[in-house]
Amino acid sequence: MSKFVSYYRADHSIAWGRLDAETVYDATPTAPSLAEAIAADALDSLAHYTDRPVALSDVRLAPVIPEPGKIICIGVNYRTHQEEIGKAAPQAPVVFARYADSQMGHGEDALKPADSAQFDYEGEMALVISKPAHQVSKAEAYDHVAGYAVYNDFSVRDWQRAASQWLPGKTWPGTGGFGPCLVTADEVGDVTELELTTRVNGEVRQRGKVADLINDIPSIIEYVTAFTPLSPGDVIVTGTPGGVGLFMEPPGFIVDGDVVEVEVSKLGTLRNTVRDVS
Amino acid sequence: MSKFVSYYRADHSIAWGRLDAETVYDATPTAPSLAEAIAADALDSLAHYTDRPVALSDVRLAPVIPEPGKIICIGVNYRTHQEEIGKAAPQAPVVFARYADSQMGHGEDALKPADSAQFDYEGEMALVISKPAHQVSKAEAYDHVAGYAVYNDFSVRDWQRAASQWLPGKTWPGTGGFGPCLVTADEVGDVTELELTTRVNGEVRQRGKVADLINDIPSIIEYVTAFTPLSPGDVIVTGTPGGVGLFMEPPGFIVDGDVVEVEVSKLGTLRNTVRDVS
Repeated sequence: MSKFVSYYRADHSIAWGRLDAETVYDATPTAPSLAEAIAADALDSLAHYTDRPVALSDVRLAPVIPEPGKIICIGVNYRTHQEEIGKAAPQAPVVFARYADSQMGHGEDALKPADSAQFDYEGEMALVISKPAHQVSKAEAYDHVAGYAVYNDFSVRDWQRAASQWLPGKTWPGTGGFGPCLVTADEVGDVTELELTTRVNGEVRQRGKVADLINDIPSIIEYVTAFTPLSPGDVIVTGTPGGVGLFMEPPGFIVDGDVVEVEVSKLGTLRNTVRDVS
Repeated sequence: MSKFVSYYRADHSIAWGRLDAETVYDATPTAPSLAEAIAADALDSLAHYTDRPVALSDVRLAPVIPEPGKIICIGVNYRTHQEEIGKAAPQAPVVFARYADSQMGHGEDALKPADSAQFDYEGEMALVISKPAHQVSKAEAYDHVAGYAVYNDFSVRDWQRAASQWLPGKTWPGTGGFGPCLVTADEVGDVTELELTTRVNGEVRQRGKVADLINDIPSIIEYVTAFTPLSPGDVIVTGTPGGVGLFMEPPGFIVDGDVVEVEVSKLGTLRNTVRDVS
């Protein structure tokens, strides 16, 4: 029944804690990281934790899980996005990887590579794995979810589409927005009721409901854990609805200074400002 | 001027050492892992290391680097393989990921998933990164290579080809054969002269020369490090020549009991036996 954040201390080390309204309660003394607290099944016991308060406004947020061993992304998983791509629905889930060092937290800049003219957003909902998950059936899938958070799978389209495999466009530093916080599964309740909205400079670009996922969460967990074991703190990013910049007419790519927000009901709003880097 | 291996001790912990003919000299007291020795630029100083000898025949080899942070695979990188696929050469390198927990060493079983009828081999040459590599130019690329080893990118074709992205067919446990040993770059000399042969039960299936790579090693390093930073011990698997089982007529998929060998001149022979798992 709680929310948790990871954040940077003044010395750049990463701390984590329970979030309650505008206060973070530093829980780092109880476990070195949020992922390790999840692995120790310790979040329930911290639901009323109130030690070491820090004002949320005084901290810089890190990615919710700063160092997941695996970040598994699901592509083409909303009908509205599949239709704008203009290809038939895939037979099986589209699954690709992103690396941990590509992530940034809420409030951090999204880094647009200078030599790309096709920087794009993908508002998504992510789930965080709670316990070792290998060959998990749909029926047992939700037992392996610690909670949920907002993700923005920022994509460098010219590099993504230069060849058949997407990794070169999906893992640039400063392109995996993950935040602001983890909301535990029990606090979320029925995750299929959540609604997602992506805005660029306040203009709505994407809307979707988790209920509209082509491959729902149990199906994704069963499919992914069939071929690769997942560990506590690993992340699955569940897909983006229609409305990405690539398929707008004219294309709605994002540039230096644009503010991109992804809001998911119950999970909060992830905000990143685009900044050019060379 | 040396060869190095990682191996399992009787207690299943992983050790590493210098390999000289049939003897391994346990160098674990000098650094906890081969990757950490590479990061400390310590391999040169171990070229004549002769402490703590163990007979090679007494140890079970681990993957050369058991836990790379990133294993970057290059697809469609020999003309002979591109031709058998029957598609135009890609504009840019085809790049995808494999996870560390999918690897096994020389002599270990390759694990064929019970629900796949399309298990296949891909003999390749891998390189290991020596120092932090971000936005490295072609001219400086070889300065970032610690050495080379043989790789077999075993592929679960039905899962690889079920959707556009290949990860589901490329990272099952027991499918990343990596061994027997790392041969340092100075001992290899001109890497483009190396020749690769893949055999199934003694029958030659693939032949290639590193000189025939479509994207050569400096080009691969420049391209990959443009979008993702690499660290000491990270691995790039450079691509497979024509002759994979998928495109034989009839298909030459491998099954329980098949012995697959990948031999690369100067690097040795990687041997794995296929075993069904459910």
